[in-house]
Amino acid sequence: MTKPSPVRDTVRPRRWRCVCAYDGGSFSGWQSQTSRSGGARPVIPTVQDALEAGFSAVLGAGTKIHGSGRTDAGVHARGQVFHFDASWRHGPEKLAAAVRTHLPASIQICSIRPAPAGFHARLSAKGKIYTYDVWLGDADPFTRPYAWSVFRPIDVAAMRAAAALLRGRHDFEAFSASRGGEKEDTVRDLRRLDVVRRGRRVRITAEADGFLYKMVRSLVGALVLVGEGRLEPGRVREILLSKRRGPPVHTAPPLGLFLHRVIYR
Amino acid sequence: MTKPSPVRDTVRPRRWRCVCAYDGGSFSGWQSQTSRSGGARPVIPTVQDALEAGFSAVLGAGTKIHGSGRTDAGVHARGQVFHFDASWRHGPEKLAAAVRTHLPASIQICSIRPAPAGFHARLSAKGKIYTYDVWLGDADPFTRPYAWSVFRPIDVAAMRAAAALLRGRHDFEAFSASRGGEKEDTVRDLRRLDVVRRGRRVRITAEADGFLYKMVRSLVGALVLVGEGRLEPGRVREILLSKRRGPPVHTAPPLGLFLHRVIYR
Repeated sequence: MTKPSPVRDTVRPRRWRCVCAYDGGSFSGWQSQTSRSGGARPVIPTVQDALEAGFSAVLGAGTKIHGSGRTDAGVHARGQVFHFDASWRHGPEKLAAAVRTHLPASIQICSIRPAPAGFHARLSAKGKIYTYDVWLGDADPFTRPYAWSVFRPIDVAAMRAAAALLRGRHDFEAFSASRGGEKEDTVRDLRRLDVVRRGRRVRITAEADGFLYKMVRSLVGALVLVGEGRLEPGRVREILLSKRRGPPVHTAPPLGLFLHRVIYR
Repeated sequence: MTKPSPVRDTVRPRRWRCVCAYDGGSFSGWQSQTSRSGGARPVIPTVQDALEAGFSAVLGAGTKIHGSGRTDAGVHARGQVFHFDASWRHGPEKLAAAVRTHLPASIQICSIRPAPAGFHARLSAKGKIYTYDVWLGDADPFTRPYAWSVFRPIDVAAMRAAAALLRGRHDFEAFSASRGGEKEDTVRDLRRLDVVRRGRRVRITAEADGFLYKMVRSLVGALVLVGEGRLEPGRVREILLSKRRGPPVHTAPPLGLFLHRVIYR
């Protein structure tokens, strides 16, 4: 037998783009915490840590992935996107199949494709779509992990009226939770903020060029207060213009939030 | 202040009927294992144990509940029914609300009502409806805990043809998993066995006057083999008539099975 040529075995590394879904209830958020300064690794892994372990098992130790952005602990994703650079001689389907065997049931690889030239999961993103599910009343055990149960009667028309006042290009500082540190640009273009009721599920869909920290959950928190009749629809405009997060704005729980899709050109 | 009359405080115990839902993935099945002879209590509780703990917290220690029947580890329920006897002076809604605060999120109390005279959750049952969900391909993380992912192409028409041969009053011994012990009557009236595809979900619905141990999952195992083209539809009739569980009959995994409803007059 002849020794296989090392030249033939070598494939130049290239960039891959992957779409994944995950049940955020099983993770301490997206962001890897292995590089956390001085801190111990958390008992519950992050999505990125679990994915890097799965890809490293197939592609070699130390494979790093780069997400479109973080999601907080408990937040789910149907279409999170990340990229990675790797030498892989077989098709992307075979890579996906191989990695799947190393992932927990709470993470799904939806697709792997060669990335277009210059692609970067975070820097190339042109926008994001999130959904948030509110459940009217006591949800069954199969819905509970994925929706916020609200027990007061809800006026969906009032929520829609408030949502219309929030859409557009605004400074959304009043609807974000500052993480401290440097002052960031807090103007975002909220292209879409829909409220649709179907049976006992009220789905809020938000699309923007980008979102501030906890922005979707702050918008949902205000809209639900409006729906419950505890905040006048017009007040959300005043809060927006105040550019200050005040007492009526609170953060809806993470379990109803899904990163639905990341938009690229 | 006068001391309240002990007579006025006493309410005669009566029988209550409760409908509940649960995510079976969180439990070691329905049946309480506290009375298991000589065995240690399992680390994962049973549904009955969790419910008795919740009701005992409100109604007093040692409250016992009596289910319509067992479900195995990993099997879910949308409409399991149980009864219990208790003295409760307030309405059933208040009892449900009080017990809810003592239950895990994986169990839902759907309703509590005074039981009709002579009602017994198991002995009064006239039938049961189960559903079983098969998912065609790789299910997302939110569907995975509730459906059996099947990766071969499926012929739903062939499954329906086989189901038609199984409906009716038959000896279903070939489609049960004997638990040993005494010989039980294995004739059941399978009133309904439907196969409905909607998108990538194939839902099998079975209704009978009663089901043998692992009967639904054995029927599903055979139907999926037929759907995959690995068993001729007509063969299920031969297996049924053989009254012997043979190699082609296997048990579908529990995660797709839901006790949908218990039928009473």
